[in-house]
Amino acid sequence: MPTEEIWLALESPEDIADAIKAMRVRGAPLIGAVAAYGLALAALRSGARDKDGLLSDLRKAADLIRATRPTAVNLFWALERVLRAVKNTSGDVEALKRAAVDEANRIAAEDVALNKRIGKHGQELVPDGSTVLTHCNAGALATVGYGTALGVVRAAIEAGKAVKVIATETRPLLQGARLTAYELLKDGIPVTLITDNMVGYVMAEGMVDLVIVGADRIVRDGVFNKIGTYSIAILAKEHKIPFYVAAPTSTLDLERSSDDVIIEERAPEEVTHIRSIRIAPEGVDVLNPAFDFTPMRYITAIITEDGVFKPGDLLKRYGVMAKLHKGPRGH
Amino acid sequence: MPTEEIWLALESPEDIADAIKAMRVRGAPLIGAVAAYGLALAALRSGARDKDGLLSDLRKAADLIRATRPTAVNLFWALERVLRAVKNTSGDVEALKRAAVDEANRIAAEDVALNKRIGKHGQELVPDGSTVLTHCNAGALATVGYGTALGVVRAAIEAGKAVKVIATETRPLLQGARLTAYELLKDGIPVTLITDNMVGYVMAEGMVDLVIVGADRIVRDGVFNKIGTYSIAILAKEHKIPFYVAAPTSTLDLERSSDDVIIEERAPEEVTHIRSIRIAPEGVDVLNPAFDFTPMRYITAIITEDGVFKPGDLLKRYGVMAKLHKGPRGH
Repeated sequence: MPTEEIWLALESPEDIADAIKAMRVRGAPLIGAVAAYGLALAALRSGARDKDGLLSDLRKAADLIRATRPTAVNLFWALERVLRAVKNTSGDVEALKRAAVDEANRIAAEDVALNKRIGKHGQELVPDGSTVLTHCNAGALATVGYGTALGVVRAAIEAGKAVKVIATETRPLLQGARLTAYELLKDGIPVTLITDNMVGYVMAEGMVDLVIVGADRIVRDGVFNKIGTYSIAILAKEHKIPFYVAAPTSTLDLERSSDDVIIEERAPEEVTHIRSIRIAPEGVDVLNPAFDFTPMRYITAIITEDGVFKPGDLLKRYGVMAKLHKGPRGH
Repeated sequence: MPTEEIWLALESPEDIADAIKAMRVRGAPLIGAVAAYGLALAALRSGARDKDGLLSDLRKAADLIRATRPTAVNLFWALERVLRAVKNTSGDVEALKRAAVDEANRIAAEDVALNKRIGKHGQELVPDGSTVLTHCNAGALATVGYGTALGVVRAAIEAGKAVKVIATETRPLLQGARLTAYELLKDGIPVTLITDNMVGYVMAEGMVDLVIVGADRIVRDGVFNKIGTYSIAILAKEHKIPFYVAAPTSTLDLERSSDDVIIEERAPEEVTHIRSIRIAPEGVDVLNPAFDFTPMRYITAIITEDGVFKPGDLLKRYGVMAKLHKGPRGH
C-alpha cells in the first residue's frame, strides 16, 4: 500500500503472529479479529484427542500471539474470548474446535456491526459541511470493515452530510498516507494529506472543525493510541477544537491505569529508513514508541457502540462492566 | 545528505537562484549569504561600462534571486545590502564590482561571527546536563558556519556543559534527520532523532529541558520558521518548557506583522514522495506550507547577537533600528 493492494493467506498461528508483529495487519480491532482466527487455526490444526490436550495447544498458540504486541488490548481480549468459548463448550474434540472457529467468526462479524453503531452515534457530533482531522488509520483497514473514526465519517456522509477529512501522514509507518488516504479516495470521500507537523498550522488557519481518532487501549485515566495522538489532543485543546475517540468497548480496560500499560518500542529502522531508503546518518540514536498516552482531560468524548460518553460518564457507564471485557494483563 | 556530502560550484546568478529555489542551499542566514554572492557573480559577469549599466544588471539579477522564496527575510536584506554598497561607492566599474564582492564577503564573514555571539548569549540559558529539543536545521548547514540554534548548543558545550539534543526529523524534507543529526554526529554532540509527532511524548516523559529553534523572519507579533515550529511551541507551553528562538538581527522585520508575510506553498510531491518513492495514493490532495507562524505569546525569549530578549523587550530594543535592516517587502 498505497501502490499495490496485496492479500495475504495466513494459514497457521505462526503466520498470524508474524503478520501482527510485522504490522502486515494492524489496527486494534483488526488485530483482535485476526488473533481470534489464529486460535481457530490452532484448533483446526491440533492433533489433541481430548479437551485438556486441545486447551493446552490453544494456550501455547495464545502465548505466541499474545507476545507479538503489548499495547492494544483487543489482542488479549479476543484470545481470551476464544479460549473461554472452548472452555465453556462440552462435547467431543470436533465440537470444541467448531466452538473456537465459531467464536472467531462471531468476533469478526460483530466488529463490522459495532463499527456501524459507533458510526451511528458518532455522526451526530459531525456538523454538515465540517472538516474532520484524523490521525493514523482507524478505518476499514484497521478493522474487519467500516472503521471506527472513519466509520463515523462514513456514517455522517451516509446521513447526507458533506464531510471532508484531513489525514496526517503518521510517521514512521505512514498509515495516514498509505491507508487512510487510500481508503477514503477509493470511497470518494474528500481527503487532504498533511505531514504530522502541519497539525498546528491547519488548526490555526481554521481548517479543522473536529478531531476523531481511534484507540488501542482505553484505561481509567486516558487513551493509548498511535504516537502523535497526544500532541494532536493538546493542539486541539489550544485551538478549542473538540477531540473525540471512537472505539468499540473491547478497547476498554478501565480497571487499569496508564501506569499499568507498556508502550511498545519498535525497531529504529522504521525511523531511519523509509521503505529501503536511508534518511538519517548511520549511528544516530533513535526513539520509536509506537503509541502515546492522552490523559482524559484532553478528550471531549469517547464514542462506543453504546453511545457518546464524556470521560467521567464513561467510567460510570463501564466501571463495572469492564470486568466482563478484561483480557489478561498487557506485558 | 545524509549518505553523501556533495559540494556544488554555483557560477552565475541563475545557478544561485536555482539552488535557493530547489533548496540545495537553505536556512535563512545561508540563503542571505548565497544571495549576496549571487549579486557579486552578477557584478563580475556584467559587461556594463558605467554605474547605471552595472546597477541595472544587478537589479535584474536581484529580481531573479528575490523571486525564489518569499518567506525568509534575510534573502531580501542581503540583496539590498549589496545593491546599497554598490550605489554608495564611487569610482570606475571595476571599483564598483569590487564593492559588490567585498560586501558579499563581509556578509558571509559576519555571519559566523554573529552566530558565535548568539551562541555566547544563548548558552547562558542552557543548564549543564540538559537536553535541548530542536526542529529542522538551524546549524552550520543553515548558515555560513556554527549555526544559530545549534550554535547555542555548541557554545554551551564549549563552555564545558554536558548537553544532549533531540532532533525532530522535520517532514517533508527531513532537514532534522538529514542535516541536524548529521552535523551533530560529525561533531560528537549526542543527538537522538525522533519523528515530528513524538514531540508531545518526549515532553510528557520529561526528556526535554528547553526548545531552541531558528527563524526565517521575525515580525512584530511573532516568528516565521519551518512548518511544525508552531505546534512545538504550543506543546512546550503546555509542558512548561522554555521555548527560545535564536536568530541574527538580519532576520528581524519588526515593521511588519504576520499579515504582511506570505507563507511559501511548495510542491505536493515533497509530501507524497520521499526521494523518488511514492508514499501516498495518486490523486490525493496535499497541503505543503514550508513555514508556519508562532505568535510571540508562545516564545520565552529571542536570542540575537546582541543578547537575550523577551518578546516585549525585543520590540523596545529594535523597534527603531529595524528600519536599518529592512529589505524590500516580501511578495
